[in-house]
Amino acid sequence: MKTLKIATIPGDGVGKEIMPEAVRVLEKVAEVHGGLKFEFTEFPYSCDYYLEHGVMMPDDGLDRLSQFDSIFLGAVGDASKVPDHISLWGLLLKIRKEFQQEINIRPAKLFKGIEPKLSNRNPFDMVIVRENSEGEYSSIGGRIFHDDNEIAIQNNVFSKRATKQAMNIAFDLASKRKGLVTSATKSNGIFHAMPFWDEIFKEVSGQYPDIKTESKHIDALAAYFVTHPQDLDVVVASNLFGDILSDLGAAIMGSIGIAPSANLNLNGKYPSMFEPVHGSAPDIAGQGIANPIGQIWTAKMLLEFNGEEEIAEHLLKVIEDVTADGYQTGDLGGKYKMTEVTDEIIKRLGK
Amino acid sequence: MKTLKIATIPGDGVGKEIMPEAVRVLEKVAEVHGGLKFEFTEFPYSCDYYLEHGVMMPDDGLDRLSQFDSIFLGAVGDASKVPDHISLWGLLLKIRKEFQQEINIRPAKLFKGIEPKLSNRNPFDMVIVRENSEGEYSSIGGRIFHDDNEIAIQNNVFSKRATKQAMNIAFDLASKRKGLVTSATKSNGIFHAMPFWDEIFKEVSGQYPDIKTESKHIDALAAYFVTHPQDLDVVVASNLFGDILSDLGAAIMGSIGIAPSANLNLNGKYPSMFEPVHGSAPDIAGQGIANPIGQIWTAKMLLEFNGEEEIAEHLLKVIEDVTADGYQTGDLGGKYKMTEVTDEIIKRLGK
Ligand SMILES: CC(C)[C@H](C(=O)O)[C@@H](O)C(=O)O
Ligand SMILES: CC(C)[C@H](C(=O)O)[C@@H](O)C(=O)O
Repeated sequence: MKTLKIATIPGDGVGKEIMPEAVRVLEKVAEVHGGLKFEFTEFPYSCDYYLEHGVMMPDDGLDRLSQFDSIFLGAVGDASKVPDHISLWGLLLKIRKEFQQEINIRPAKLFKGIEPKLSNRNPFDMVIVRENSEGEYSSIGGRIFHDDNEIAIQNNVFSKRATKQAMNIAFDLASKRKGLVTSATKSNGIFHAMPFWDEIFKEVSGQYPDIKTESKHIDALAAYFVTHPQDLDVVVASNLFGDILSDLGAAIMGSIGIAPSANLNLNGKYPSMFEPVHGSAPDIAGQGIANPIGQIWTAKMLLEFNGEEEIAEHLLKVIEDVTADGYQTGDLGGKYKMTEVTDEIIKRLGK
Repeated sequence: MKTLKIATIPGDGVGKEIMPEAVRVLEKVAEVHGGLKFEFTEFPYSCDYYLEHGVMMPDDGLDRLSQFDSIFLGAVGDASKVPDHISLWGLLLKIRKEFQQEINIRPAKLFKGIEPKLSNRNPFDMVIVRENSEGEYSSIGGRIFHDDNEIAIQNNVFSKRATKQAMNIAFDLASKRKGLVTSATKSNGIFHAMPFWDEIFKEVSGQYPDIKTESKHIDALAAYFVTHPQDLDVVVASNLFGDILSDLGAAIMGSIGIAPSANLNLNGKYPSMFEPVHGSAPDIAGQGIANPIGQIWTAKMLLEFNGEEEIAEHLLKVIEDVTADGYQTGDLGGKYKMTEVTDEIIKRLGK
């Protein structure tokens, strides 16, 4: 019997509702496929936790989380309670950085039965590989001068090591898919970082003669997500560009409520973390109408990267069948509640 | 007789083709509306110029351009000839910065008769106000270490003065439109610059009690451009975010080939510059199939910001009528050539 020890962090807003849904699904997956067991331990780290304790997680928070095979996260952040940069840099981004989760994998594909947002209605199926540890997300910088003279400096830090690593992952993925890597750049506008990015992309490309490549500036690439998503396969992007493109990928899928992601630790020293792309959506939280698919598809990635590819593929197939048959929440134009969609997935897993 | 002295820079790729089209239109506008005259002077600054002279423009280039009422630009950059950061920082971005064109105005609206890219088919009509002089577009930074240890640092510089100025312009615009300003932020991920941006937005908002406001993180906002463009009015954004959002705005309009922009100098010391949002598109250049509307709508903005609002509105109406009647280039799914679309616009201007 293989036991996976999972730390769950429901977090804020809809995170609190959708986490139990995905846990129900994983329990059912374990029941159906013998030989696999989950041990879930819930951590209350969130904006509410901050309001009570003055920190997003306790001093030994990282230590405790490091004992698990994986971290399963809902959504963090609620600006009405705690400023976003405090809540995110104190929890989500802290875990990504401290646990060296340097790669973020974010698939985007059009499911059958979901009304396309794009009028070309072209099916697409891509994966965004996002550098997840550096770049535009840096705490280096600060402010100077007072009043109307004030200036804020923000340092972006790009290392060849981490950039290359993200690109290598992208090329490896492309070699198992359609064989195309698209690099998100902005070397015409971002004077130092992006020409550097392009040079590394060129160098890494040279090692994969069988993979086709293209570079697109982030502005044009964002437009391309709207006009030609079907022509993309693997997109490799910096931390910020990957952030933007993956939300865009989620939007063209039909709803930001669907998209999953995996924050991967590659050196084996710390757990990886799995979380949906969407945020905590405080405006719709607590009404039972959130789309559970983002969290459940994320559970699929958790299975996949814990060596259970086959079970993961089965779960994804069930999710797709359920949406294809019209079990959809309101964000997709459907009439079903969160739990009804989950129930249907669980029912079909049992078959 | 009012004479407008216009410096034209066709630039690279399709810029060379569409510039004469827009000039033809402006000549016709002058002919139809008595009392207005144009004097055009063409400057060959471009990647080809660089290949010949080793610089994108001569030492006295800025001096010469500064003599004109406005600069009318096609498109700059052709990475097959000159690396983008050289060509752009040597010409387009240099003019924007040296001529203190600190505001970039970019409208996005769905024209009648253009097949919407979004399946919701909702009409939308927004303006993006882009800070145009600082932020992520800075030449401060550099590299350190060798080989695989190499690191590039890119400094983003945000001043309260320029940020506030962009926001003030956005609020002023909104007060003449639908009364909503949406701020593009990323204060959850960009640790120093974006919380600073949010603070200034809050401060400026306070001065416009009648204007509704909202802040959206750039990732969510990019998605929102796909899902809810009809709910946007004025969007205020940093240099990079404005760049990305305006291409996205162009994409949802149906083609990047339509969108116009105005780089405004506000202190009256230097000319403003007008250029379409699209790039030089070397892949389709020289075939006579480029969409001239981007450059012609840009000509409309040139008229508008040179005090000819009425004539400008008339030109925009003619453009819209022409596209509504199906005179569209291939990028819009139409069968007309570049010159045919222009000819039709000119014909109708005459009426
Ligand atoms: C060509 C490039 C430097 C430019 C920019 O990034 O500003 C362009 O994309 C634009 O939007 O005008
Ligand atoms: C919440 C925020 C800090 C985060 C990010 O920007 O990475 C989110 O948008 C994401 O994509 O996971």
